Amino acid sequence: MTRIIGIDPGLHVTGWGVIDYDGLRLSHVAHGSIVSDSSTELSARLGGIYRKLHDVLEKTSPDEASIENIFVNGNPFSSLKLGMARGVAICVTNMMGVKLFEYAPNAIKKTVVGVGHAFKDQVTTMVQTLLNCNVVKQDAADALAVAICHAHHSNPYGT
Amino acid sequence: MTRIIGIDPGLHVTGWGVIDYDGLRLSHVAHGSIVSDSSTELSARLGGIYRKLHDVLEKTSPDEASIENIFVNGNPFSSLKLGMARGVAICVTNMMGVKLFEYAPNAIKKTVVGVGHAFKDQVTTMVQTLLNCNVVKQDAADALAVAICHAHHSNPYGT
Repeated sequence: MTRIIGIDPGLHVTGWGVIDYDGLRLSHVAHGSIVSDSSTELSARLGGIYRKLHDVLEKTSPDEASIENIFVNGNPFSSLKLGMARGVAICVTNMMGVKLFEYAPNAIKKTVVGVGHAFKDQVTTMVQTLLNCNVVKQDAADALAVAICHAHHSNPYGT
Repeated sequence: MTRIIGIDPGLHVTGWGVIDYDGLRLSHVAHGSIVSDSSTELSARLGGIYRKLHDVLEKTSPDEASIENIFVNGNPFSSLKLGMARGVAICVTNMMGVKLFEYAPNAIKKTVVGVGHAFKDQVTTMVQTLLNCNVVKQDAADALAVAICHAHHSNPYGT
């Protein structure tokens, strides 16, 4: 059995989702969102992401972590903000000694939905079906999708 | 007396510099560079920046920290890489309870050199003159420049 945490970092919302994978079956363990208020100072926001994510890893004890590969959009300012949250999230996995794997956005969608250019709500629907759970927030669903993607890639004979 | 750490974050090199300021005089305490090898895994690089910067803050016990304001260049990929290192550096100051101040690049140059569009080597020369020290690495000199900038702005009657 491998316990995997998927992380979908963002300065405003960082989604996370934990699943177990026994080589055949996926099962949902927990998921959530870390929200930081834009009126709060930047250092407190980033420190908050660190503390809360550290707490999640401590409580759920994942064996491995997975994250979406570097997604570069056309806006350098957005990239910098995303980069800061991503840096902190990746740093936490290293501080907790959890090995990190990265997957391209299209690889995640292809694994979960079957096609690389799926819509966001298709990903959420499939995550809920595959894990038999109810996920309200997009960021947590995306995080569970990255975890599912890693589960499938970590075992070539997987589901 | 206020002890200030200036930080110049980067995924490859993160410069840092610590100074003391008594409201009239600046004095050099320490400076250095945290270098991470690009052949190392991203999570180990970011974890390394966290650990080493944490260590610097623990050893030098600054009262306040300063960092260059968000610098967005035309390349989203560079912005993302810079953002990751910046996020980790800012996170460390928050974890250590050191208040962070941000300054625009031009404000830093104007404080240190006298003009907002100074060349890099002019900044290094002035940092060395103001602090009566020898700084070989650019990133450490830039970090000391941010610290000097904060010292000047923290006291309107300063030097």
